[in-house]
Amino acid sequence: MNATEPRRHTDAGAAQAARARYRAGAVEPTSGIAPGFTQANMIVLPRDWAYDFLLYAQRNPKPCPVLDVTDAGSATTVLAPGADLRTDLPLYRIWRDGKLAEETADATAAWREHSDLVAFLIGCSFTFETALVEAGIEVRHMADRSNVPMYLTDRPCRPAGRLRGNMVVSMRPIPASRVADAATISGRFPAVHGAPVHVGDPALIGIRDLARPDFGDPVRVEPGELPVFWACGVTPQAAVMASDVPFAITHAPGHMFITDVPDSAYHA
Amino acid sequence: MNATEPRRHTDAGAAQAARARYRAGAVEPTSGIAPGFTQANMIVLPRDWAYDFLLYAQRNPKPCPVLDVTDAGSATTVLAPGADLRTDLPLYRIWRDGKLAEETADATAAWREHSDLVAFLIGCSFTFETALVEAGIEVRHMADRSNVPMYLTDRPCRPAGRLRGNMVVSMRPIPASRVADAATISGRFPAVHGAPVHVGDPALIGIRDLARPDFGDPVRVEPGELPVFWACGVTPQAAVMASDVPFAITHAPGHMFITDVPDSAYHA
Repeated sequence: MNATEPRRHTDAGAAQAARARYRAGAVEPTSGIAPGFTQANMIVLPRDWAYDFLLYAQRNPKPCPVLDVTDAGSATTVLAPGADLRTDLPLYRIWRDGKLAEETADATAAWREHSDLVAFLIGCSFTFETALVEAGIEVRHMADRSNVPMYLTDRPCRPAGRLRGNMVVSMRPIPASRVADAATISGRFPAVHGAPVHVGDPALIGIRDLARPDFGDPVRVEPGELPVFWACGVTPQAAVMASDVPFAITHAPGHMFITDVPDSAYHA
Repeated sequence: MNATEPRRHTDAGAAQAARARYRAGAVEPTSGIAPGFTQANMIVLPRDWAYDFLLYAQRNPKPCPVLDVTDAGSATTVLAPGADLRTDLPLYRIWRDGKLAEETADATAAWREHSDLVAFLIGCSFTFETALVEAGIEVRHMADRSNVPMYLTDRPCRPAGRLRGNMVVSMRPIPASRVADAATISGRFPAVHGAPVHVGDPALIGIRDLARPDFGDPVRVEPGELPVFWACGVTPQAAVMASDVPFAITHAPGHMFITDVPDSAYHA
C-alpha cells in the first residue's frame, strides 16, 4: 500500500546514459532526450531558505509542483538513486544576491560553498510532451530541435516568507483544432504543471513580444495556430531575482535533470 | 489564469453556521455536517518544527495532502477568510512532549503559549463521502451517526528531519460489488487522500482488531462487505507521538475544520 517513493523504471538505461554524458561535460537542452523519463527543474538553497521555498511551492503548485526534496547537505534523490545532482544536469546557473553570477556545466564548486544545501526537484512540462506527440500534436521546439520559449508574465505568485515573484510560462503553438486535446492530455499530468494556464493573446498575461522570450529560443507560430501557455518550473528563478535571494543554484532553463521515473508515474 | 487561492463557495452559509456553533462551544464529529464543504485536518506547530512537517507532508502526500499553511503567528486561512482557527473547530487536542495532554473545545489559551505557531490544514476523506453517498454507496458511520473508525497501521511514512511515524487509515465497510466504484470515485479527489490504500484483510497492514479502532468509533461490517482503508489526516498525530514533538495543537480525530471551499474544488 505504501508508495512513499515514486515508481522508478526497471530499465532506466536511457536516462542513465544521458546523465553520464552531462556528467562528462556535454551541454544541450533536454527536450526530447531519453523520451518517457520524467525531467525535473531544480533549485538549490541553503537550509535557512528551504522553508520559505517549500511554502512558496505549496502555495503555487501549478508552477512549482515538488517531485522531491533532498535532505540538507545531500546531493542525491529518490528520483534517480545513482545520480549526483552536482554534476548530472547539462547546465547550471549560480545566483548571488538575486543576480545570475555564472553558468557552468559542473556545480560541484558552488555546492561546496554551503554545507546545508537543500535541492528541490520540480515537475517539468517536458514530461507530457511525449504524450502530445503520441496524440499527433507537433511540439514545435522539438520538431525544430531548439529550446522551448519561456516568458515572465505579469501574474504574481502567492508570496511565502521572504519569497515573491511572478509566474513564468512555457509556450507551444498548437493548431486551433487541437487546443482542446492539448489541454486534456496535459491536464492528465497535474504533478508536472498540468493543463495550460492561458490560451491566445500573450498581452493579456503581460507578454509583449512572442519573438523575444525571456528564456529559451523563439519558435514559429504558423497561421491557424494559437500560442498556448503552461506554468513553468523556471518560476523559482524569477522568485530568486525578485526576492534578492543571497545564494542559489538552479538548472539553466531547458537544461533539466533527467530522472529514472517514467512519465506514466505522474499520469493522474 | 492565476488561481493561487482555492475557489471558495459563493454561499458558504452552512459552513459558517457550523463554525459559529463550534465557536460558541458545541462539540460533535463533523462527518455529514455542512455537506458539500471541504473539511480539513489541522496540526499546529512552532515555526522551528514547520519545515520538518511541511517536508514530511511533501514526502507522504497520500496521508498528508496540504490544503493551506498559515503564516507564522496567524490563525486565519484562505480556505475560510472569516474563520478563527483557535476556536472554530469543535474539539482540539493539545500535545506536550509527544503525549496527549488535554482535549478542549477552545485552543485560544494553548495558542497563546507560542508567538510563531504555523497551522497546517490537511485534506480529509470526509470530502468524498458526499460523492460516495450520491453514488448510492452507504457510508456506515454517517448512517449510524458515529465517528469514522481510524487505525494506526504498521506502515512507516517516509521520515523528514526529526519527524517519523506510521500511517493512520480510516475504514469504511463497502459491499464487494461496490469496492471498485468506491475506489474510482474517491480516486477523483487526490487532494483529499484519493483512492484507498488497502482493501480487505486488516492484519496485512498491522491492524489486529477492527472492533477496537485507535481513534473514533467501531462500525458494523455486514456479510458481503469488505473493510476498505483510506490514508487519514490523523497521521500527523501519530508522528507527534512517535517523534516526541515538544508542542502541538491538533483537531480531535473526526472533529474537523469546515472550510468555505466546495468539495468540487478538489475534484481532479
